[in-house]
Amino acid sequence: MSTKSTDHIVKSFDSDLQHLSQVIAEMGGLAESQLSAAIDALIKRDSELAARVVQSDKRIDDLEQEIANFTVRILALRQPMAQDLREVIAAIKIASDLERIGDYAKNIAKRAIILNQQSPVRPVNSIPRMGAIAQQIVKGVLDAYIEKDADRAQAVWRRDEDVDEMYNSLFRELLTYMMEDPRNIGACTHLLFIGKNIERIGDHATNIAEIIYFLVHGKSLDESRPKGDTTNVAVGN
Amino acid sequence: MSTKSTDHIVKSFDSDLQHLSQVIAEMGGLAESQLSAAIDALIKRDSELAARVVQSDKRIDDLEQEIANFTVRILALRQPMAQDLREVIAAIKIASDLERIGDYAKNIAKRAIILNQQSPVRPVNSIPRMGAIAQQIVKGVLDAYIEKDADRAQAVWRRDEDVDEMYNSLFRELLTYMMEDPRNIGACTHLLFIGKNIERIGDHATNIAEIIYFLVHGKSLDESRPKGDTTNVAVGN
Repeated sequence: MSTKSTDHIVKSFDSDLQHLSQVIAEMGGLAESQLSAAIDALIKRDSELAARVVQSDKRIDDLEQEIANFTVRILALRQPMAQDLREVIAAIKIASDLERIGDYAKNIAKRAIILNQQSPVRPVNSIPRMGAIAQQIVKGVLDAYIEKDADRAQAVWRRDEDVDEMYNSLFRELLTYMMEDPRNIGACTHLLFIGKNIERIGDHATNIAEIIYFLVHGKSLDESRPKGDTTNVAVGN
Repeated sequence: MSTKSTDHIVKSFDSDLQHLSQVIAEMGGLAESQLSAAIDALIKRDSELAARVVQSDKRIDDLEQEIANFTVRILALRQPMAQDLREVIAAIKIASDLERIGDYAKNIAKRAIILNQQSPVRPVNSIPRMGAIAQQIVKGVLDAYIEKDADRAQAVWRRDEDVDEMYNSLFRELLTYMMEDPRNIGACTHLLFIGKNIERIGDHATNIAEIIYFLVHGKSLDESRPKGDTTNVAVGN
């Protein structure tokens, strides 16, 4: 029953896994560039770029579907065990996180289009900064996945706290702008959701880091997951 | 290689699937009651109830982990094919959606605790209404899952549009309150995120409906998925 019973089967199962990794890398690269383009579109008030981001999301969705179909075929035909099985399950989970990251990037782009139709609010610098860190985190986990590097995954995982902290300060900043001038409320609300989207992107990248860690070590990252949205407290005072 | 090669194996694989369904039903029941308690805690300004919701979320997370471990064991030991394999994969996906629904309920409860520490804003009736519909949708997809009833799943799936519409009107309503009195901004922002959380719960229930449809018919619900967040447009004007 082992997938390693003949060399032939070994070779093709390995090439299956390689194909999976390639599609994940492609999805990840797309998710990364979608996020970067969405933030660019927001900062440069470029609605055409934002519209392209919205359209391109379908490609990520299609790749997730491709991975879903392919993994079902692998599971049925190869019936992998132990580590091989973990690899396949990890690919399904990572694809689902990447699809969500793409969704959030699309949402940012949609909101950028609307914001571009309104007069600009005071520049909110924390959003591009948050976006840049989220991008680095996404890139970092993808590299960690390709190299099966659990240490790197763990290092990236810790950086998510920075994104959370920035979200908290963004939240306070935007609340102040809204109170200063109620005409800012509509735009600031969109910026608040954009910030939340970036924070969620960080969370999904963190998920991926946890999956990689488990894949390599067979046990979970046992520190409690960094979760830093303290806006509840910030507003509760 | 077929799982149906002996009666003994058939019986125990069937009991595996039955166990999976039971755990999913338990998770779903919990997710449903967490959502209902979170909304209750918000409306009745009951922080103790909200704190219980926050604590109980761990139980849903544990059940998802149980399903993950159990399905990996089924895949490895039983090596199911075709429809059996689809059942197992559907369970993994549904568990992941239910876990997210639980997360959103927890988030609503956290925000309810903070809101209870502030003076109440004008009653926002659309939130309990949205919550009640989201609850019915979650309950509906769970019933559809247990009965493997694709028609029911599809009917429930359509109701998500109501939640989206209500979110759009809630968004406009809250923006108005914020503009009327800037002191409402902090609380209204939390209510806005609570509304968004309920809308996302509806989306995850919709996902589950799609999984059930695919499970029963082996093809996807090919109408485009109801997605009704038009707040972009609402604010873009």
